[in-house]
Amino acid sequence: MKGAILARARVPIVIVDITHALPPGDIWGGAWVLRRIWMRFPAGTVHLCVVDPTVGSARRAIAARAGERWFVGPDNGLLGFLGHAPLGPIRIEEVRALRATPGAPLPAPTFHGRDVFAPAAAALASGRPEETLGERVAPESLVGLDLAPPRRDGDVIEGTIVHVDGFGNLVTDVPVEWLAADARVRVGSARLAGLSASYADVAPGEPLLTRGSIGTLEVSVRDGRADEALGTGRGDGVRIETAHR
Amino acid sequence: MKGAILARARVPIVIVDITHALPPGDIWGGAWVLRRIWMRFPAGTVHLCVVDPTVGSARRAIAARAGERWFVGPDNGLLGFLGHAPLGPIRIEEVRALRATPGAPLPAPTFHGRDVFAPAAAALASGRPEETLGERVAPESLVGLDLAPPRRDGDVIEGTIVHVDGFGNLVTDVPVEWLAADARVRVGSARLAGLSASYADVAPGEPLLTRGSIGTLEVSVRDGRADEALGTGRGDGVRIETAHR
Amino acid sequence: MKGAILARARVPIVIVDITHALPPGDIWGGAWVLRRIWMRFPAGTVHLCVVDPTVGSARRAIAARAGERWFVGPDNGLLGFLGHAPLGPIRIEEVRALRATPGAPLPAPTFHGRDVFAPAAAALASGRPEETLGERVAPESLVGLDLAPPRRDGDVIEGTIVHVDGFGNLVTDVPVEWLAADARVRVGSARLAGLSASYADVAPGEPLLTRGSIGTLEVSVRDGRADEALGTGRGDGVRIETAHR
Repeated sequence: MKGAILARARVPIVIVDITHALPPGDIWGGAWVLRRIWMRFPAGTVHLCVVDPTVGSARRAIAARAGERWFVGPDNGLLGFLGHAPLGPIRIEEVRALRATPGAPLPAPTFHGRDVFAPAAAALASGRPEETLGERVAPESLVGLDLAPPRRDGDVIEGTIVHVDGFGNLVTDVPVEWLAADARVRVGSARLAGLSASYADVAPGEPLLTRGSIGTLEVSVRDGRADEALGTGRGDGVRIETAHR
Repeated sequence: MKGAILARARVPIVIVDITHALPPGDIWGGAWVLRRIWMRFPAGTVHLCVVDPTVGSARRAIAARAGERWFVGPDNGLLGFLGHAPLGPIRIEEVRALRATPGAPLPAPTFHGRDVFAPAAAALASGRPEETLGERVAPESLVGLDLAPPRRDGDVIEGTIVHVDGFGNLVTDVPVEWLAADARVRVGSARLAGLSASYADVAPGEPLLTRGSIGTLEVSVRDGRADEALGTGRGDGVRIETAHR
Repeated sequence: MKGAILARARVPIVIVDITHALPPGDIWGGAWVLRRIWMRFPAGTVHLCVVDPTVGSARRAIAARAGERWFVGPDNGLLGFLGHAPLGPIRIEEVRALRATPGAPLPAPTFHGRDVFAPAAAALASGRPEETLGERVAPESLVGLDLAPPRRDGDVIEGTIVHVDGFGNLVTDVPVEWLAADARVRVGSARLAGLSASYADVAPGEPLLTRGSIGTLEVSVRDGRADEALGTGRGDGVRIETAHR
């Protein structure tokens, strides 16, 4: 993919690797990484995102624009966290359904990353007009993720563990601002209360709550893995109640 | 190695990582990666290739040129797939046996990647004349791989699994154009027929045949690992017969 | 972190990845990588070093300068090998205790890599004066590693295995120049003598001694892992005696 980009670049292009460590076919994980990092990159960035277990099927190949940045990849849910409230949604303003590059060889059915997405990303990064990439389609037609937004009902909040990071930390989709000072959190086998400012606030092996790097509740175990210690993981629920109930 | 390149660069150099995930000492795997990616990079690329289990022994250090691109690394078979028919062979036109850089400290015996190959690659990428790198040697003297090309004998084709990718897909050296429409494929414990256009053509857990990304026959298991499911792997044979036999 | 750098860069910045393969929280391992690679990079390099298990605690955030290069990261021992004699010590000439960037959002308590260190590294690489980063503190106040330098006492040398590399090779802190020609080495379950010029000098599976890539004694097993074969690892001792004792 890097070769395909560099061979087509019409301007100097800076390529940085975000991750190659996702489990094969992990669309949800890829969507999380995207949600997590896009806003850190400068305007004008083209995000080339390929987690593509149904490559070669009828799933669409797309380029989606939000402001001055583009997301290029399969239409299979990879962009599904970008607009997931309340995690700082962004609005996709324009989507192009990629067509095969005129004159280019037929893409290999199992590697659109190299033969479809990388060339489209190189074209956008080189300033080629988006009209040349394919027809415009409705942003609302993008495939989503099977994930409900977190709910607040009186003193009860129900959210979801949307990610387990490489350290075993459990990232939820519940903004920490939603938590009352005396909120009690049920997650896996643990019952916790009180946000910690740092891992060092608790003893090694103990669980704790923190404000994660995108502003949502995270559950960790100091010097350990929260997913293993608490017997829970991605897609599982987290329930929060205020103490007076 | 990146530091050694950047410290010697006389022009801006774009460094991209291809892979650091090969098992230690896996020359065959490195050769496959090279075969797989070189043609995607622009002319003028210097491919720095270090899989070097016999570093410090009498094996030669070389720079090999094909057209406007260079391959720099140990002479131990790493370039062995480049000319392997029928996988789109390229012709190595010039080979230099690298000598120690004049004035540089003696290379560490166990890290020629940093002390020999990276400096040579930086020199070539900076436009230094290849004559300064070392004496010219015959391309025919390059060390090869222990691998016969695939054979066609009447209605029977015998090829080899040359690579198992990170998803467990079995990549063979048999061009799909060789397969008759009614060809039957024996690979590991499976008997298969008919090329699939995409993984989604079969049910999860089922094996299938596809045209791989370099145009040869690949064997996969949807949402699974073909190597484990079929009990076979790199170096094993694949046998193809037409149905009327 | 890469996005945070690129979004703040005022000049073209070349970012290269050194490693993302350290075990979580492995300060000693990160310190070793730093010690191992800094001198290979050109003057003017900013080394952004984040292994930060006590992120959010009272540990300081620092930028340290040696000559024309900077090291940016947590003050937790990561720089502890840089001055470790006799491994080619460098002198840290200036240290700044990083303060929060004026006007920037409050850093997330668990990701100073992105919110504190990457912005500081981008500022230094862009030529911003170091005075703007924070107050000057004494280089002597930097946190160290719990590691004594190797000792020579008559005919006996006692050193430490400071690193086990990805191949299982045991890297010690004993300069090979210290070894007499007839020195005998005790490391784990092995008793060895005589430096080998390359792995190929011994039979597969056999242990050997080499001069490692920073000039210290290394213990390897050809085509195998020395740590597993000899039952030893990082932090363990190595003892060397001359043969006439």
